[in-house]
Amino acid sequence: MGGDGYLGWPTAMYLSARDHDVAVLDNFSKRAWERELNAAPLIPVSTLADRVRTWQEVTGRRMASFVGDLCEYDFIRDVLRDFHPDAMVHYGEQPSAPYSMIDQRRCVMTQVNNITGTLNILWAMREHAPAAHLVKLGTMGEYGTPNIDIEEGFIEIEHKGRKDILPYPKQAGSFYHLSKVHDSHNITFTCKVWKLRSTDLHQGVVYGLATDESELHPDLATSFHYDEVFGTALNRFCVQAIAGIPLTVYGKGGQTRGFLNIRDTLRCVELSILNPPQAGEYRAFNQFTQMCNVLDLAKTVQQEAQKLGFQVEINHLANPRVEAEQHYYNPRHEKLLNLGLQPRLLSDVLVDSMLGTIRDHAHRIRHDVIMPRIKWASPFEPAVKTCDPVS
Amino acid sequence: MGGDGYLGWPTAMYLSARDHDVAVLDNFSKRAWERELNAAPLIPVSTLADRVRTWQEVTGRRMASFVGDLCEYDFIRDVLRDFHPDAMVHYGEQPSAPYSMIDQRRCVMTQVNNITGTLNILWAMREHAPAAHLVKLGTMGEYGTPNIDIEEGFIEIEHKGRKDILPYPKQAGSFYHLSKVHDSHNITFTCKVWKLRSTDLHQGVVYGLATDESELHPDLATSFHYDEVFGTALNRFCVQAIAGIPLTVYGKGGQTRGFLNIRDTLRCVELSILNPPQAGEYRAFNQFTQMCNVLDLAKTVQQEAQKLGFQVEINHLANPRVEAEQHYYNPRHEKLLNLGLQPRLLSDVLVDSMLGTIRDHAHRIRHDVIMPRIKWASPFEPAVKTCDPVS
Repeated sequence: MGGDGYLGWPTAMYLSARDHDVAVLDNFSKRAWERELNAAPLIPVSTLADRVRTWQEVTGRRMASFVGDLCEYDFIRDVLRDFHPDAMVHYGEQPSAPYSMIDQRRCVMTQVNNITGTLNILWAMREHAPAAHLVKLGTMGEYGTPNIDIEEGFIEIEHKGRKDILPYPKQAGSFYHLSKVHDSHNITFTCKVWKLRSTDLHQGVVYGLATDESELHPDLATSFHYDEVFGTALNRFCVQAIAGIPLTVYGKGGQTRGFLNIRDTLRCVELSILNPPQAGEYRAFNQFTQMCNVLDLAKTVQQEAQKLGFQVEINHLANPRVEAEQHYYNPRHEKLLNLGLQPRLLSDVLVDSMLGTIRDHAHRIRHDVIMPRIKWASPFEPAVKTCDPVS
Repeated sequence: MGGDGYLGWPTAMYLSARDHDVAVLDNFSKRAWERELNAAPLIPVSTLADRVRTWQEVTGRRMASFVGDLCEYDFIRDVLRDFHPDAMVHYGEQPSAPYSMIDQRRCVMTQVNNITGTLNILWAMREHAPAAHLVKLGTMGEYGTPNIDIEEGFIEIEHKGRKDILPYPKQAGSFYHLSKVHDSHNITFTCKVWKLRSTDLHQGVVYGLATDESELHPDLATSFHYDEVFGTALNRFCVQAIAGIPLTVYGKGGQTRGFLNIRDTLRCVELSILNPPQAGEYRAFNQFTQMCNVLDLAKTVQQEAQKLGFQVEINHLANPRVEAEQHYYNPRHEKLLNLGLQPRLLSDVLVDSMLGTIRDHAHRIRHDVIMPRIKWASPFEPAVKTCDPVS
């Protein structure tokens, strides 16, 4: 689900390359949201149909595709009935925190879209695929930044002489992140009452644009974003460095997060599929490979870009978000390592290769989508005027 | 919000009687859901317009009413802009756990309806009533039945030598209860980022049908339900006792819950309004006055009904829900007591007066809506056929 997206398409190719029989579902909502905001991926992205065709031409492997909306129950029910999946990888949600904060309409749409899609998958599983495994993409942002270690989904609490293992408390930082919290609670419940099985991947911030499969042909590229709404931190910094824009560090930059390479995302999904939970089991994996604060991330990009001859400044902007800029952060992330994940850590070589690819497409960088305009806490005014997207 | 309902209407009268300037909002969804399931309140309920008119005739007090859907943003935004509330009491949600479990459509409708309505209220507050106080009706069912004491909304956790006060983990037991969990997370977030203020009343199971105000005139009665879908445990048992139907205890009956009288609900809401939180504060009160397990509740009703000459049997039905039937349960509930709540505990007199009123309306009891047909965990089949509601 969401197989046309930044992570969905590379995941589909990765699994297809490893002899899984893959079907891709999407309704291209993300492309519509891009148009709405006048944003576009750095590298041109072919249509899904063309990418599926190219994939077959290049590898000889067939991939099914279903175009439809997870919010329409008939669609997902019929796909599960006809395709009989062993596992479903669910990226099919509105994926942007800033987008969910723009205004009332986008906030409600984000939560209704994400919750309804996931509920429909769960009901369809109950009806037609009760033994299948739902691999759901959640986010580390569900946890917020508590002052104690973040465990993987559950925490043993000793309280007034008694003990229990309970869902880890959630303190999400946007309506988007909250939609994932709601999903997690809904999935947990259906695993209990309907004996479904699910792995909830609480993913960190993903960076990178190339995978072994995407590099086989230019038409197989994924949608790499650097704009305020759909771009993630490191990806944005790399593009800003090449474009000669000061790196946009929000506030002090002490916000620490977990990061991972896009190639590790694919491996984590594969490891989850190959090691399914029991019937009735809901489990959560914290999916990232290293931690870094935002300022250090910016400095790393600055250094590597300077080696390539780019002069890069770092700009501390007024933070558009409401979040702690200095905080304790120690999330556990052993479960995927225990299943065999071998992390690709951020390195000179890696940043260098990202910068090189971005330089090749530098003529397509749009400067007007870089600066943050969507504010979490401003006095009431629509943050983005739809009819005037680039001001 | 939800001022036409079982608790909403008595709350509106209670506050009006105490010199508050009250407006009632409703779109009569609950009445539509009743028709859909062929259920009806025990005592005939006048239209909202007629009740408002009767209230004015009897007390001389005016009450505004707005008919509209909280899911339509313009509606709630315009009401807040024009009425300028100091406090909003939000009962305006689909209120039934069994209803939310009937099928995919009702599940999704329940969550979308409840979440959208609450999000719209929050956005409208941000726009037109940022200093107002949202008194939100949540439920004790958000917590589930953990093996440690349930605190009021938050818990201090000591973990690996560090401490934090975090949202109490939620383990809700139906899609309806989950919708309230989602609301709680959304409200908490907006209090943080927009400095709204809210009291989340985690309410126990309410019983009773009379308040000082409802007794002023027959047209002021509230909608008292005894059916499978909208009836609560004690209310159902009282009706079953009068109707000569064995009391429907689900499973062993060891399920312990917090209960409160409908009159205490009104007082709790008033206490919350009179003691508002600070700007930016989200607080949760556990709102019940005593705990009891379901079997003991049935036995109490049995004894009192026998005093009135009714022979009452207790029937242990196969539990239609997925829940622990024996469990630890010790929720705290000091905060409302500290504000001055003086509980009306369940007593012989109280059950006796309920049974008396029900006996007066016994000719209206419909036997075909008593037995549970909606199952939490059955193999997939629509639990209720809409075109054949009474089988």
